[in-house]
Amino acid sequence: MAGDGSDQRALQYEQTLMYGRYTQELGVYAKEEAARLRESGQKRSIGDRSRSLDLLEYEKGRCAKCRICTVRCQKFLISRVGEDWIFLILLGLLMALVSWVMDFCIAICLQAQKWMYAGLESNVFLQYLAWVTYPVVLITFSAGFTQILAPQAVGSGIPEMKTILRGVVLKEYLTFKTFVAKVIGLTCSLGSGMPLGKEGPFVHIASLCAALLSKFMSLFGGIYENESRNIEMLAAACAVGVGCCFAAPIGGVLFSIEVTSTFFAVRNYWRGFFAATFSAFIFRVLAVWNRDEETITALFKTNFRLDFPFDLQELPAFAVTGIASGFGGALFVYLNRFFVLFMRKQKAINRFLIKKRLLFPAVVTLVICTLTFPPGFGQFMAGKLTQKESLVTFFDNLTWAKQGIAAEFDYMGHSQAWRHPQVNVFVTLLIFIIMKFWMSALATALPVPCGAFMPVFVIGAAFGRLVGESMAAWFPDGIHSDGTIYPIVPGGYAVVGAAALSGAVTHTVSTAVIVFELTGQISHILPVMIAVILANAVAQSLQPSLYDSIIKIKKLPYLPELGWGHHEKYNIRVEDIMVRDVRYITLNCCYRDLHNILLTGHLKTLALVESAESMILLGSIEHSQLQLLLSQQLGRFRRLQYIREQAAEEKKRLSQVSNPSSEDSNQRASQEVRFQISTEESSFIPPRPVLQKPLKPALKRSSVAERPAEIPTSPHDNSGIALKNLFCASQDTEGLEDDGDVEDDMTIREIAEWEEKQLDEQVNFSNCKIDPAPFQLVERTSLHKTHTIFSLLGLDHAYVTSIGRLIGVVSLKELRKAIEGSVTVKGVKVRPPLASFRDSGTSGTSSSENEATELHKLWDRHRSVSLPREHVPSESDEKSQ
Amino acid sequence: MAGDGSDQRALQYEQTLMYGRYTQELGVYAKEEAARLRESGQKRSIGDRSRSLDLLEYEKGRCAKCRICTVRCQKFLISRVGEDWIFLILLGLLMALVSWVMDFCIAICLQAQKWMYAGLESNVFLQYLAWVTYPVVLITFSAGFTQILAPQAVGSGIPEMKTILRGVVLKEYLTFKTFVAKVIGLTCSLGSGMPLGKEGPFVHIASLCAALLSKFMSLFGGIYENESRNIEMLAAACAVGVGCCFAAPIGGVLFSIEVTSTFFAVRNYWRGFFAATFSAFIFRVLAVWNRDEETITALFKTNFRLDFPFDLQELPAFAVTGIASGFGGALFVYLNRFFVLFMRKQKAINRFLIKKRLLFPAVVTLVICTLTFPPGFGQFMAGKLTQKESLVTFFDNLTWAKQGIAAEFDYMGHSQAWRHPQVNVFVTLLIFIIMKFWMSALATALPVPCGAFMPVFVIGAAFGRLVGESMAAWFPDGIHSDGTIYPIVPGGYAVVGAAALSGAVTHTVSTAVIVFELTGQISHILPVMIAVILANAVAQSLQPSLYDSIIKIKKLPYLPELGWGHHEKYNIRVEDIMVRDVRYITLNCCYRDLHNILLTGHLKTLALVESAESMILLGSIEHSQLQLLLSQQLGRFRRLQYIREQAAEEKKRLSQVSNPSSEDSNQRASQEVRFQISTEESSFIPPRPVLQKPLKPALKRSSVAERPAEIPTSPHDNSGIALKNLFCASQDTEGLEDDGDVEDDMTIREIAEWEEKQLDEQVNFSNCKIDPAPFQLVERTSLHKTHTIFSLLGLDHAYVTSIGRLIGVVSLKELRKAIEGSVTVKGVKVRPPLASFRDSGTSGTSSSENEATELHKLWDRHRSVSLPREHVPSESDEKSQ
Repeated sequence: MAGDGSDQRALQYEQTLMYGRYTQELGVYAKEEAARLRESGQKRSIGDRSRSLDLLEYEKGRCAKCRICTVRCQKFLISRVGEDWIFLILLGLLMALVSWVMDFCIAICLQAQKWMYAGLESNVFLQYLAWVTYPVVLITFSAGFTQILAPQAVGSGIPEMKTILRGVVLKEYLTFKTFVAKVIGLTCSLGSGMPLGKEGPFVHIASLCAALLSKFMSLFGGIYENESRNIEMLAAACAVGVGCCFAAPIGGVLFSIEVTSTFFAVRNYWRGFFAATFSAFIFRVLAVWNRDEETITALFKTNFRLDFPFDLQELPAFAVTGIASGFGGALFVYLNRFFVLFMRKQKAINRFLIKKRLLFPAVVTLVICTLTFPPGFGQFMAGKLTQKESLVTFFDNLTWAKQGIAAEFDYMGHSQAWRHPQVNVFVTLLIFIIMKFWMSALATALPVPCGAFMPVFVIGAAFGRLVGESMAAWFPDGIHSDGTIYPIVPGGYAVVGAAALSGAVTHTVSTAVIVFELTGQISHILPVMIAVILANAVAQSLQPSLYDSIIKIKKLPYLPELGWGHHEKYNIRVEDIMVRDVRYITLNCCYRDLHNILLTGHLKTLALVESAESMILLGSIEHSQLQLLLSQQLGRFRRLQYIREQAAEEKKRLSQVSNPSSEDSNQRASQEVRFQISTEESSFIPPRPVLQKPLKPALKRSSVAERPAEIPTSPHDNSGIALKNLFCASQDTEGLEDDGDVEDDMTIREIAEWEEKQLDEQVNFSNCKIDPAPFQLVERTSLHKTHTIFSLLGLDHAYVTSIGRLIGVVSLKELRKAIEGSVTVKGVKVRPPLASFRDSGTSGTSSSENEATELHKLWDRHRSVSLPREHVPSESDEKSQ
Repeated sequence: MAGDGSDQRALQYEQTLMYGRYTQELGVYAKEEAARLRESGQKRSIGDRSRSLDLLEYEKGRCAKCRICTVRCQKFLISRVGEDWIFLILLGLLMALVSWVMDFCIAICLQAQKWMYAGLESNVFLQYLAWVTYPVVLITFSAGFTQILAPQAVGSGIPEMKTILRGVVLKEYLTFKTFVAKVIGLTCSLGSGMPLGKEGPFVHIASLCAALLSKFMSLFGGIYENESRNIEMLAAACAVGVGCCFAAPIGGVLFSIEVTSTFFAVRNYWRGFFAATFSAFIFRVLAVWNRDEETITALFKTNFRLDFPFDLQELPAFAVTGIASGFGGALFVYLNRFFVLFMRKQKAINRFLIKKRLLFPAVVTLVICTLTFPPGFGQFMAGKLTQKESLVTFFDNLTWAKQGIAAEFDYMGHSQAWRHPQVNVFVTLLIFIIMKFWMSALATALPVPCGAFMPVFVIGAAFGRLVGESMAAWFPDGIHSDGTIYPIVPGGYAVVGAAALSGAVTHTVSTAVIVFELTGQISHILPVMIAVILANAVAQSLQPSLYDSIIKIKKLPYLPELGWGHHEKYNIRVEDIMVRDVRYITLNCCYRDLHNILLTGHLKTLALVESAESMILLGSIEHSQLQLLLSQQLGRFRRLQYIREQAAEEKKRLSQVSNPSSEDSNQRASQEVRFQISTEESSFIPPRPVLQKPLKPALKRSSVAERPAEIPTSPHDNSGIALKNLFCASQDTEGLEDDGDVEDDMTIREIAEWEEKQLDEQVNFSNCKIDPAPFQLVERTSLHKTHTIFSLLGLDHAYVTSIGRLIGVVSLKELRKAIEGSVTVKGVKVRPPLASFRDSGTSGTSSSENEATELHKLWDRHRSVSLPREHVPSESDEKSQ
């Protein structure tokens, strides 16, 4: 129950062995967001007014002009600080610094390992110990550190950002603690030399930076409190994250769009470009200043010939690379999910490992490091190269294999690692690919901050290199027939393979742009594009993207994409997928109806209709608001009031001398407050902002989960019997301290009677937060359009109306079912076979009839379990307004 | 009133001297679209059923299996044809062919001119004639041809595509005639050697191809009839257009997104990538097959050094180039608009030129060609080079100026054109820039199919080259200090300048990607990005983009972008900009109210509320639908029916022998038909699909414009007096042929009386097309969010409701005003100063009171001008449903 308002707005995070899991659905967030925004808007406008009052105050002073000038300057500065571009530049600068410092630390970590390894060359066992212990310690530290400080920092971050950009608030996902945990955890896990990447986490880190910067900047200007602006800034931050990680501004923007958005605003694209370019610029300038480079160039600069990059007849080989990468990408996603789900399923191991959280990462690291130990098996897979070094070797401009005999080539620098006295370069490449493949899939499932992009990229480059070397061995003098000999460039294949495999795993085409920016050459544009598109086509038809897979594993709220080419989606209508049995309340219902609805309900929002006959949709009300209404009606406060009133009446009856007691004035005051509140009805301010529905705390205990709907309305609140009946768990009599004067001397019997009376009163909705314009669809809206609208507006449910009459409701769940049905089962129409017959019988009444019978059933059930009561018809005909 | 349904759905095109102008607002299209879609959906489902019947039929035959197999194969093929990727491949192939063939023809045209020019070297006058006549003839032909065949083909096409992708249907914009006109017109105008581009028109041509291909493919499969799918395909087509024009698939996709969309779906981005890559591939493969190239490379391949592309200290020069380009871009847009508006304003010239349409392009061409005549002034601006050739010279890897003395450099090939014996290379470049600048701005305003991207790109490259040459002259040994000498590469500056200026004119950053793809080198990525972003920042703060400027000139329906950095947009609420005085009709109104509303209305849609007291919004009805209702009520058909009924009663009264006459059976039949129609009410099929509101024909005459609301409801329709009163123009008694049997023997007095009676009846909305879920907003929705929703959903108006009560309406107009107010006037809040006071008084009643008084006024006014009538209270209390 702890925490401020922002905590309450967040999704709950449940920690599991590998990935965490989110345990709540989308639900109420949009509404609460809106309410919060409204509040803050009000607060701000009050602030504005007070500021202008300050100004007036100043004018009365002596050196008034001077002061006014100061205030104006201050105001001007504040308004400037509110400008987007200042924020974006700061964000870019910050991220570039973070990226550079992290790269620096990682490089030092990796050098330290190498130095230790080289220093102990005399003793293989000591060497092995050094080789293995170092990463194990780092990874274990990383896992432990993040788990203690902020378990949200685990994993990539792109799936979560995708969810956040859809409008869902994830609990503690953008806090300073998470930032620290992510940065330090990522540095350690990358410094260990495991096959992990920094791209995904960088998206998260950039978003954290943006969120924190926003908070910091809000000290100067009010604009940073705006929620929709923050979402836009987060979208830009994602671009910055990828951009400054690879020094690839364009690719970064596109990649972040592809992996985080379904619909994208061109104005955000702008922001992304601006910030990512600035960030990439600073990132590379830092390298120049540090004398690492002479000038700004690409991160993995290649030097392929420009005049004849590839022959037209090589295109089939590129296409084959693309298709194979597609299958490989799908396999990678499958493997990654398999590891996670396998570990979850094994209950026994799971229980053991959850106790010893750090054992699992340590064991995995040990196994992987043992296999890559250079004097051991690592000699067959260039185990001593770091990811960066192997990438450089893959992209180099030389051909390793001549005529199939690798030995005769004079290897230089790191390329030497690929030469083995006994085995062929093809074999080392193949072993490298196979081993790294499962290692990366396993390593990225570790509970440390890590991304999968870079390992996949390296594997793709290795695969491309393998194909390229094979081609070079097959056609030693190139394919081109007329005149000049253009030998085949295996490095070009490596570029193509890297783009294709990473594209297949992430389901993006912008990896093509990223490789151009990484290598600084665009000459292979057509092969890369062709391979990436083919790889995507294959991978998308087999598996979801890695990020969608993680979203599913983590149970984040999501909406699947509409596949393309399946034209059933145009034929399915909302009427085929909607739930006709809508749960609603009428404007003139009494509290008893509310009670019954709440007794059976698990929906987050209920439709408010004018009356059961007209079924005209007026708005939607949250479940929690109704609980609040009911608890106010049946609460201790009202009961005491009732007792007081009775007592006062009695007093009045006994002695006609009117002597207003302190209780009475208290009471009147509270009534006045109440009245004041109800005048604000038209602007929909929640009467008591603190009375929000509490969500479960971060690490929920099972006992807490038992009582999900306990409402801390006020210290004086004491739920009545019916209310307790409703929230059937907590029977403890908390907060039973008395008002002082009036005693709660009613017996349980009396309370029940009083409650019965109260329940028959008509509901007064005036103090209730109502969403006055819930989204409405028409029966014949197509699935395609519905999906578009849901993903555009980040909806969670929409009502289906027909000339104002409510006839159904579609929620994310139905939509998801319909899409998954229509997308996976080929050619199967979700529209039921009898839909056309059903159409003719469709009318508003059928659904309300259903509803009525449903209600009746519920009522009956309730009557049998509850106190014996008089049956009151639920739809009374008088109107409240 | 000619034309089929699709014609009626389109915006009207008014031909003017330079650009055409669209004369109608967004209005009714969405609704009619929806109705049309519904119809076609119904048709299709019927078709499906009949197809399965066919299958059953076959089974009875002898070689049933064989036939079933055939049918299945056919079905399979049809379903495959419906797949997106087949369509996209076909589109890509087609566009690549079109692009290549056009390039080929243009090259031949240009060669022919050169050949003529070279052949007549002996005589300067003849040479001049040849140099001038050839382009004049081509441009005049192009202008004439397009104006005769399809005036919609004039201009770029990107502004129109932007509008179409927003959901507006432009009349005859995507027809085969337009395709032919655009392709031939563009070939001629580009073949003339004028400073015109092919990019914009290619977007249009690709869209035309997609639309025509869709139509063609719909012969095989039904999916091609779906409207929203077609919009998606058009978005992909725009990408293909740019992509195959420059062989730049990535840049093409991004550019098309930036210039045509406000929000884009990532799934369309996919389609664009696929089709554009395929198209660019085929386009370049054609060049290889034609032996123009040895292999696939970039269109304007550069060969800058890779190891040290630029020094860090050159960045300020790049930034200056960017900022200057920003100013230049804004100036170009201003100049282009100035030319168009200037020509429009000069009434006298305008009238003369409209008569002699072809004179204007001819004169402009003559002037421009005279100035570029190589032996004349053209010698100072490399007049003999085509656009392509000058671009190649700008991008080349050599430095023209050494130490400021241009002469000592050994010019090769086309670069020679820049050397002039008397003047410096700087002067020739400067003259080239200045002359081409206004020439391009003028030429792109010509009424021929043409784009402005390429000319701007060339000017930008020239400007960059000028900066680069200056830098090279200033720092002959480069700037880099330690060790190696890296001379400055002026070609790199040309690349930066080209991207920056074209980015500034079009307000895009993707021009950066386009230059990388065009030059095949990405080494200058950071300078290009920085320059493009700076240029955009400058240009966007000064002028709208070229395409938005044309949209304004052409009066296409549009919604301005929200500028960034102006945070007022978050503080303005819908309640500040909405129109509180909503025009509405009630469910229980009588025809007289309808009549009154229609008499004063010019709105396209009216809100339908439950009653004037409750103001609960039920839906919206089109103006035309109400006219239809009224005309049906007061029409000749009903009057004749009334006469018949009276006659029948009289007959019955006279003779009790019932003898059903032929008229009676006729009448009953028609009533039955009517009944049948009204049962279909629930699925919202318009009872008579032909009864749609006719729009004006393409080339409207002034006389037609006078009678905009004439309704051809049926041949038997004869508007009554009140109706004629309403549509006050056409008094001609058209279609007065009689029914044959019953005579219309009522006098005008009687008709008036009958109409009075009819007007007092309650409106029966059952035959009326109602939009049951118009978009609703809440009072406190921010301007920012409203803009987002309007542009996301392509809305034209939205109702503002408060718990179901209608309290206001926001249309595109109000939104546009609010945005333009908040964007252009810095720091000025559109929220009126008294808004906060007004808030407290806001409730549903005040607006309905306003409405009521407004209605009352209208009523009074109407009473004074119309026939003397009894005042009937407009809100009767009985309900129709």
